Amino acid sequence: MLTDAQIKEFDEQGYLYLPDLFTEEEVTELFSRATALKESDSPHRVMERDGELVRAVYGVHLLHPVFERLTRDARALEPARELLRSDVYIHQTQLNPKAPFKGDVWEWHQDFLYWHRDDGMPGPQVLSVAVFLDDVTEFNGPIFIIPGSHTDQLHSETSTYAEGWESAAMGFRHRVDNETLTSIMNRNGLVSKHGRKGSVLIFAGQVLHCSPPNLSAGDRTILFIRYNAIDNALEPIENPRPEWVASRDFQVVTASDQPLLSETAG
Amino acid sequence: MLTDAQIKEFDEQGYLYLPDLFTEEEVTELFSRATALKESDSPHRVMERDGELVRAVYGVHLLHPVFERLTRDARALEPARELLRSDVYIHQTQLNPKAPFKGDVWEWHQDFLYWHRDDGMPGPQVLSVAVFLDDVTEFNGPIFIIPGSHTDQLHSETSTYAEGWESAAMGFRHRVDNETLTSIMNRNGLVSKHGRKGSVLIFAGQVLHCSPPNLSAGDRTILFIRYNAIDNALEPIENPRPEWVASRDFQVVTASDQPLLSETAG
Repeated sequence: MLTDAQIKEFDEQGYLYLPDLFTEEEVTELFSRATALKESDSPHRVMERDGELVRAVYGVHLLHPVFERLTRDARALEPARELLRSDVYIHQTQLNPKAPFKGDVWEWHQDFLYWHRDDGMPGPQVLSVAVFLDDVTEFNGPIFIIPGSHTDQLHSETSTYAEGWESAAMGFRHRVDNETLTSIMNRNGLVSKHGRKGSVLIFAGQVLHCSPPNLSAGDRTILFIRYNAIDNALEPIENPRPEWVASRDFQVVTASDQPLLSETAG
Repeated sequence: MLTDAQIKEFDEQGYLYLPDLFTEEEVTELFSRATALKESDSPHRVMERDGELVRAVYGVHLLHPVFERLTRDARALEPARELLRSDVYIHQTQLNPKAPFKGDVWEWHQDFLYWHRDDGMPGPQVLSVAVFLDDVTEFNGPIFIIPGSHTDQLHSETSTYAEGWESAAMGFRHRVDNETLTSIMNRNGLVSKHGRKGSVLIFAGQVLHCSPPNLSAGDRTILFIRYNAIDNALEPIENPRPEWVASRDFQVVTASDQPLLSETAG
């Protein structure tokens, strides 16, 4: 359960950092399963611009039960419910391995802009729970945030529609223009979020964020769970993105009593 | 004059940070002259991969007297002489403006490897004095260093010889292989150097360093002076790089009594 101060911090800043929520043993297992998914060819994967390294794997909760259990684990789910003041469903899960030396930048963006334009998500009552599966440092691709930027009106931006959902999933489609970014940064400043593996960073769907490349020798793996308020379910659209990128399974997620690591041998 | 502790720190770590050496007024003037050089088309400039933004300007001490005076300013020159235990000459000056949102990564490299292979510099008795002309932050392209890596033997690496000196000046020619980097990082760790404008970072020609992209809304301008020990002057080679990239003017640099900002109106 979050404190009133934590809820206030999220409401004002657009993010909340919760250190050391998951144990070493849990992180080891999640990382191992994440690595297996990263290395397994599937349409869930999006590659880096070099075409060789994996940039993201979508819908991992549909691919292995440990990630499905993670989405129902109270440590991930309950903060999301509290901060959104709502029952929630899973809009998306996304694994971001950021390869040593090569894992590339994610430019400044608002997640909600993608989900609104590409998926038909009506409002911004959505957030990301980012579970650190590696130590996240200044050197390996931390998450930069403009604090408080989630309360701004939707920003003017340019959109580039390339063929296929992957172009959006690569993070290049909806750019916030530099004048808008500059003005908000000059007003609000910047923060960099990094921390130990097992920690969690929660951030609002509208908060502006980005991530520099991984210049370290180690992996920087983060697993994102995007919880959407149940009343904010996607509207029908033409040519929806695949289910594993933008789910239309609007079932309320309920907390599980099952230990995260149960049946992991299976 | 440096303290014994500072000299020891440089000898052991391969770098030394000296905060607030130059005044606000001096930095303002240097930045203004740097901007003029950046915006003025000349063969001294190297562009970013996008072909539009300026990645570096070489030989700025040949282009404006304020930079020539800077190379003889005791605050830049004397630490170099003390740390190299030698008289010095100027091998190179280099302005690195790193444009807001777009200024690109400089990958891990050893400066000396370039100067040795491309310019005929015999040994590593050379260092860089980096003068911060903007506040350097975690967000706008700080300098990452592997401390102590300057004492390693020359690392195995792959070299790519593209046409023209600019390919090396872009920092893509002599790569240290990832296995070597990984091994040294795992042993020595990483540091990130940032600080206020007017501060100076000195680092050894052999120390491994890199710099992430500028993801902020502001400039990140650093001016590098590369001082070489006078007995380490370049050997004659075929097809030398231009004088403004690798000087063969081996005159000992002597400290100047002239104020840095004298005659700046001229």
